[in-house]
Amino acid sequence: MARAAVKAQAAEPLDGAERILQILSESARLFATTGYDGTSMRDIAEACGISKSLLYHHFKDKDEIYARITLGSTRELYQFVFDRLPEGARPIERIRGFMVATGEYFQRYRWAWVASTTAFWNDPEQRRQKERMMWRDRYENLLRGLIQAAIEAGELRPLDVPLAGRLILSSLNWMHRWYKPEKGMSAPQIADAYFDMILNGLKVEG
Amino acid sequence: MARAAVKAQAAEPLDGAERILQILSESARLFATTGYDGTSMRDIAEACGISKSLLYHHFKDKDEIYARITLGSTRELYQFVFDRLPEGARPIERIRGFMVATGEYFQRYRWAWVASTTAFWNDPEQRRQKERMMWRDRYENLLRGLIQAAIEAGELRPLDVPLAGRLILSSLNWMHRWYKPEKGMSAPQIADAYFDMILNGLKVEG
Repeated sequence: MARAAVKAQAAEPLDGAERILQILSESARLFATTGYDGTSMRDIAEACGISKSLLYHHFKDKDEIYARITLGSTRELYQFVFDRLPEGARPIERIRGFMVATGEYFQRYRWAWVASTTAFWNDPEQRRQKERMMWRDRYENLLRGLIQAAIEAGELRPLDVPLAGRLILSSLNWMHRWYKPEKGMSAPQIADAYFDMILNGLKVEG
Repeated sequence: MARAAVKAQAAEPLDGAERILQILSESARLFATTGYDGTSMRDIAEACGISKSLLYHHFKDKDEIYARITLGSTRELYQFVFDRLPEGARPIERIRGFMVATGEYFQRYRWAWVASTTAFWNDPEQRRQKERMMWRDRYENLLRGLIQAAIEAGELRPLDVPLAGRLILSSLNWMHRWYKPEKGMSAPQIADAYFDMILNGLKVEG
């Protein structure tokens, strides 16, 4: 069903950034299921519903795709979430935006997410690993900044900011271990429900 | 520092269950760092500070240790946490007990935990995999039962129980990705702080 959704998307023209995310996502899925060697540029183009020449327009070879997956998914996640933070909204609404956008990214590019989160991509290249960590830190610091702003605005109680950030990220990061796209809530809905639980607490009001 | 703590523990006599957990934990660490083939029964005995004959008293060979790690850590976790739930306490205090005991288990047997959580132990034996899932489910259902009881006791608001359970487990499960034993709070302290955040919520008291 996740496949079907991706295919349906591919029928409409995608803009450059969306197309690249689709290629990375499909490639990550193919690498994870049939292996790097077992996956050809033709397979990737077919999975995306695009021509080989369009694929080569974006990537010169499989290794470039691989490199972008291992580096990219963290960088793209940062950009994706950053672009979706509601401007001018109250800090806690921006925290909700951060969580829901992460859920959305997870839902849409789940394979790339899984690939970059599991040990599967134990990238031997130190430089790429470092760059990925750098984007990971920027993503985490974005959230910490929002929490800090919410405390200063009097919306959140004084907290251990890094720990509160880790609590939120844990809830989102662990989704790939249990989430089944074909049943129940969507990933953005889950993120929103987590936001409510974490913000308001589980205990009865009063 | 975690090493040192384990060594220090080994100086005192451990009871059977503690000794077995120590052996599993040290073995998991050795397998993870020097590989299964690169680890001998002698290495394991030395790491535990015990004689080889005591080691053989508990395990007939390396494969039996391996099997217990891949199966055991989930079963032991269940038992460890179950034994530490405060009897007769209010349901939410039992939820705190569940979280703190998980943090304690994580702290003490971190290597076994990491080994069983990462793809590193992709157990080819179906039966063991199934048994592990069964213990994992029992552990998760234990928590869900506590949440349900707390709702019925009027301590927690009406909630999506499985989702609330997942939020709590996510916070604990993700620790192995960032936790550094040598600095900051201990794992049980982190679990306790998470309990406070999740129970009371991040927002200012209304």
